[in-house]
Amino acid sequence: MARTFDTLLARMQELKDLSGVVGLATWDQETYLPPKGEIARASQLATLQGLCHERLVDPRVGEWVERAATEALSPDEAAMLRVFKVERDRAVKTPQALVKAIAESQSHGLAAWREAREAKRFAPFKKALQRLLELRREQADALGHDGERYDALLESYEPGMRVRRLEPVLGRLKDQLIPLVEPLATASARRPSQIAGRTFPKAAQWEFSLTLLRQMGFDFSAGRQDVSIHPFTGGTHPLDVRLTNRIDEANPFSAIFSAIHEGGHGLFEQGFAEADWRTPLAAAPSMGLHESQSRLWENLIGRSHAFWEHFFPLLRQAFPEALQGVTLEDWVFEANRVSRSLIRTESDEVTYNLHVVLRFELELLLLNDALPLDDLPAEWNRRMETLVGVRPENDLSGVLQDIHWAWGELGYFPTYSLGNLYSASIHAAAQRAIPDLEDRIRRGDLLTLREWLRTHVHAPGFRLPAEERVQALTGRGLTDEDFIAYLKRKYAAAS
Amino acid sequence: MARTFDTLLARMQELKDLSGVVGLATWDQETYLPPKGEIARASQLATLQGLCHERLVDPRVGEWVERAATEALSPDEAAMLRVFKVERDRAVKTPQALVKAIAESQSHGLAAWREAREAKRFAPFKKALQRLLELRREQADALGHDGERYDALLESYEPGMRVRRLEPVLGRLKDQLIPLVEPLATASARRPSQIAGRTFPKAAQWEFSLTLLRQMGFDFSAGRQDVSIHPFTGGTHPLDVRLTNRIDEANPFSAIFSAIHEGGHGLFEQGFAEADWRTPLAAAPSMGLHESQSRLWENLIGRSHAFWEHFFPLLRQAFPEALQGVTLEDWVFEANRVSRSLIRTESDEVTYNLHVVLRFELELLLLNDALPLDDLPAEWNRRMETLVGVRPENDLSGVLQDIHWAWGELGYFPTYSLGNLYSASIHAAAQRAIPDLEDRIRRGDLLTLREWLRTHVHAPGFRLPAEERVQALTGRGLTDEDFIAYLKRKYAAAS
Repeated sequence: MARTFDTLLARMQELKDLSGVVGLATWDQETYLPPKGEIARASQLATLQGLCHERLVDPRVGEWVERAATEALSPDEAAMLRVFKVERDRAVKTPQALVKAIAESQSHGLAAWREAREAKRFAPFKKALQRLLELRREQADALGHDGERYDALLESYEPGMRVRRLEPVLGRLKDQLIPLVEPLATASARRPSQIAGRTFPKAAQWEFSLTLLRQMGFDFSAGRQDVSIHPFTGGTHPLDVRLTNRIDEANPFSAIFSAIHEGGHGLFEQGFAEADWRTPLAAAPSMGLHESQSRLWENLIGRSHAFWEHFFPLLRQAFPEALQGVTLEDWVFEANRVSRSLIRTESDEVTYNLHVVLRFELELLLLNDALPLDDLPAEWNRRMETLVGVRPENDLSGVLQDIHWAWGELGYFPTYSLGNLYSASIHAAAQRAIPDLEDRIRRGDLLTLREWLRTHVHAPGFRLPAEERVQALTGRGLTDEDFIAYLKRKYAAAS
Repeated sequence: MARTFDTLLARMQELKDLSGVVGLATWDQETYLPPKGEIARASQLATLQGLCHERLVDPRVGEWVERAATEALSPDEAAMLRVFKVERDRAVKTPQALVKAIAESQSHGLAAWREAREAKRFAPFKKALQRLLELRREQADALGHDGERYDALLESYEPGMRVRRLEPVLGRLKDQLIPLVEPLATASARRPSQIAGRTFPKAAQWEFSLTLLRQMGFDFSAGRQDVSIHPFTGGTHPLDVRLTNRIDEANPFSAIFSAIHEGGHGLFEQGFAEADWRTPLAAAPSMGLHESQSRLWENLIGRSHAFWEHFFPLLRQAFPEALQGVTLEDWVFEANRVSRSLIRTESDEVTYNLHVVLRFELELLLLNDALPLDDLPAEWNRRMETLVGVRPENDLSGVLQDIHWAWGELGYFPTYSLGNLYSASIHAAAQRAIPDLEDRIRRGDLLTLREWLRTHVHAPGFRLPAEERVQALTGRGLTDEDFIAYLKRKYAAAS
């Protein structure tokens, strides 16, 4: 007898195909779309996303979900149903009028944010942000929560995570990071850069980034790397994963670490189990766990001494002029330089999470309407001084630096820190499972690690929530201990 | 009071957006999709196209069409409704089971065709072609016709055209072309090529093709050129038109004439009136009229002496080595060399339509089951000898050369000849309207012609059927006279 589940599965597959097409249309928007095409793409995407929403909230689909839950399902089918139901319930709870109002406010938000950035002053952005915050509060209340509105938004990016779980961990992390900054920044400042002023030719940088990705095991017959203004990982399917990168001739670290970072995301996307393709299980269970893979490759592997013992000789071959007189030790030091910088995306491993904590704390206040928007820029600057030890000269390098709030995205920033924390715990587990891991990295063998990650993180997909997956792998869930231990070990050796 | 037409218009716009996305997904398939992604793209496209079909044949849409027809509509709205209704009626008449059976047989057809090409023998393709022909007959009967099945298929590509209109024109064309071949091919054969054996570097060819497109007025802020195996014109919207091209270092004509040809298509796509975007009016009324624009630019302009008077000096700058000792006269002669060749896509202006006539005559027999498939390869070869004066050595350069039949596309070939005939008539009308057109071309002014074509051919879009548009523009509809007069004038001057 035909099961309702199979009817539902066909709809899940349809939605997965459509979201793949959305992936193509957004990737194209950032890579090849001619400038005047923007307006056409906007309506194409609005149509596609509207259709996805309609096909998801379709009342018949609700009936199928209920009926399928009573049928004989395999464990994987039950997992698919669970993941799909959560996604659908959230879509159903957000009224169409609110979805539309948010989309419109996002357009206004982006425009106002760009205007404010031009003026280097927060004021022109204030009204649009006010409106976005109101709508996000409304959305959070529509989605439902236990009194902590932020949880409802966090759930979009980090299912299962809660503020009461996150706050103590990030608080402890902050307390331990702050005292590390002063001595490390001072030590870094004493050692002048051996790289500054050199030119690293574009074509050779691009070629080297491809070499790194190939060595990591990124499958170029099932993916690509193209140029975009901001690097990101997109694509349409595990067999069609699209990384992007950009080249700065004066700063070779930009393309190198973007390649490794996006490559980490890309391996997750290529690593889903074939049986799960076109189902809700072929997805990371959270943005934090996704970020754990990019950060693990970028920082714990890509900034390690062992890694460059293999790759630095190749790098010198690729850039014989630019690296003349530069030693392996110089290079590794430069890749790990700690400084009190204003911009999150350019910050080092020690200060990065302090930038995140700043945003997380402010988001909590903003969503609860506990901070007047007029005070936001000054509050940002005050906290930046306390946390990182620098003060922005204007709002462009302060409260206006990230795009997230411009389209009302609250609840996303913590996933960056979760990624860092998970990355250290997962790396520690990998070291326990592969005792000679560091030696393998030193020999340029990155595939052993990729295989271990594929088995333990990528292939399981959305079967378990992120923290449970980490718990299963490391013996404990979210913790700052592995990350702090890693930083202390690394910088003890470096200093 | 709200009109039903406006509800219907929203659906038309949605379908236009979706077909834009289909355009992106197919363009990407031929340009950037990594090889393993093929299987993913196939299901994404099947889902998208299935959804388009579902949203088009939706019974509510049928009610809207009926009700809208009774409302107060502007002439443009009435035209939209008319075009949309024709498209919908055809979709409704083709049962879903037949659509699916055709899609499956196309996959088999392509695979069998490739296998047959490997073997250079028709036999492995026979069974798949048999099945495709059966399904096309079934489809033609489902669509309805006045006893001439071919008309029902022709209607997909050339709305309004009929076999009884086409046959006498193509017959006369054939009778006039055959006697031209012998003397021109003999004259060409006497003059050895000045280009053979030279190398035209890739990068310079690409750059030159972009120069040509820019000069034609193709708007690169609303379009691009990328590399694909077979050149084509695609895209998602008049503001996002995608041309493709390929480079052959030994044969500079390939990329140059493909750029001009696809550029002609691209100008049509970029030229629709802004008020028509996202409506059924922003489309060519037929493939033949679309082809008229590519052929007009490629042949009547791009192979003319006047054109190269301007561009040959630039070409010599781009290829100083390869063109050493080659004169403008040599180049123009080479661009217009006539030869008895086996392959349609490589044939010259004189023999091209003979290749088309061959296919058209065979398609009529095949669709009416009047030619046993076992006899098809020999019949092809026999007719090729009669028409063009050469005999294929095997089926690869004979009946297996085109992809069209591999996916059961019958009725398309005549549109190539319609394009040639229309191009000559439209060019003659342009010469009457712009008396100094040739002088302008000689000075490199291509924009005057583009503007005239935009006004008279592109911007009107789908308002009139192709032949009525040509009639309005030239004073007469489909005729071979302008084309034959053009060829005789051109080759009288050249010989």
